Amino acid sequence: MIPSQIRQFIEKFSRLPSIGPRLATRLSFYILGLSKAERQELELALRGLNTLDRCPRCFFLKSENKQLCDICADPRRNPAVIAIVEKETDILSLERARKFNGHYLMLGDLPEKGTLETVHKSRLQHLKTRIESELNGKAKELIIALNPTTFGDFVASIIKQDFKNHTESITRLGRGIPTGGEIEFADEETLGSALERRM
Amino acid sequence: MIPSQIRQFIEKFSRLPSIGPRLATRLSFYILGLSKAERQELELALRGLNTLDRCPRCFFLKSENKQLCDICADPRRNPAVIAIVEKETDILSLERARKFNGHYLMLGDLPEKGTLETVHKSRLQHLKTRIESELNGKAKELIIALNPTTFGDFVASIIKQDFKNHTESITRLGRGIPTGGEIEFADEETLGSALERRM
Repeated sequence: MIPSQIRQFIEKFSRLPSIGPRLATRLSFYILGLSKAERQELELALRGLNTLDRCPRCFFLKSENKQLCDICADPRRNPAVIAIVEKETDILSLERARKFNGHYLMLGDLPEKGTLETVHKSRLQHLKTRIESELNGKAKELIIALNPTTFGDFVASIIKQDFKNHTESITRLGRGIPTGGEIEFADEETLGSALERRM
Repeated sequence: MIPSQIRQFIEKFSRLPSIGPRLATRLSFYILGLSKAERQELELALRGLNTLDRCPRCFFLKSENKQLCDICADPRRNPAVIAIVEKETDILSLERARKFNGHYLMLGDLPEKGTLETVHKSRLQHLKTRIESELNGKAKELIIALNPTTFGDFVASIIKQDFKNHTESITRLGRGIPTGGEIEFADEETLGSALERRM
């Protein structure tokens, strides 16, 4: 009963995260109600993503016509302080906090458990080479900005071991009660960290 | 800091219903992680919507290379019974119920209050012409399948008045407690209708 074009749209778009068949259906009819110009804007915006690739230095995203991403190319940032993050949105969150002026290494999505995959290992190796060639073998600080989960802790311990001769210091993001959070609902580990690192 | 292509994507897609800037951001990175083939599938699915237009008889959607929509073109359906609906998703919902075998007239999105707009009036006029030319001036039944809201009631009363000489009967969808609903939480009007129309 539904034209095949709409079925196609629903099938493809309902696979995206947080978009089930119901929302995909609504979206298809909403888009059909847009003007031709507005629809073309969506098409162009989607197609525009094809002109991006990875920064060869930190693995964040960059325009395909640039050598490096905007962060790596920014001369006002300190290349000797490097935050190791999992994914793009983590970089965006850290940038939004406006407290970090160093560079990044993006590891890529980590599995929830198990061990590091080839892509992660090769990016860590790449960071070592970067420290050797750019910073004379020693970074000033490596900030391990991985999620405070068991697996994040595990990966952090690997990185600490691995980079101990390549940096003056290695830190992790502080743990404690989130601003606006309630002591009553904090778990024991968080509360333990909050006590240990009381300000 | 974010490449302009991603900013563009977020800006355009966050305007779609139920997709705010947060989800649009997630979607952009998710899509960037897809293979080239998968991304192209999304592009094709989006572009495919351009090959649709409106059925000239009921105003539902049809492929641009067809004369009528699949419902109007189906010879097993009864053209003398016509459901007047607001939008595409209402047609899909009624079709899913598998209890209706007639044809449709889609009015298009109704304002929440006020009065009928030109597009709605011209589609109603179009339905009248359709009844005159196809059904010898009289439909068997018009089912007003508009939402049971104050404005829906108002529009229904206009249609009833307007079509009283063009149909043998005019009905509206039954009102009552939704299946799985609870009497405790039903409002007075619903409960009143449920009592009046007890089965």
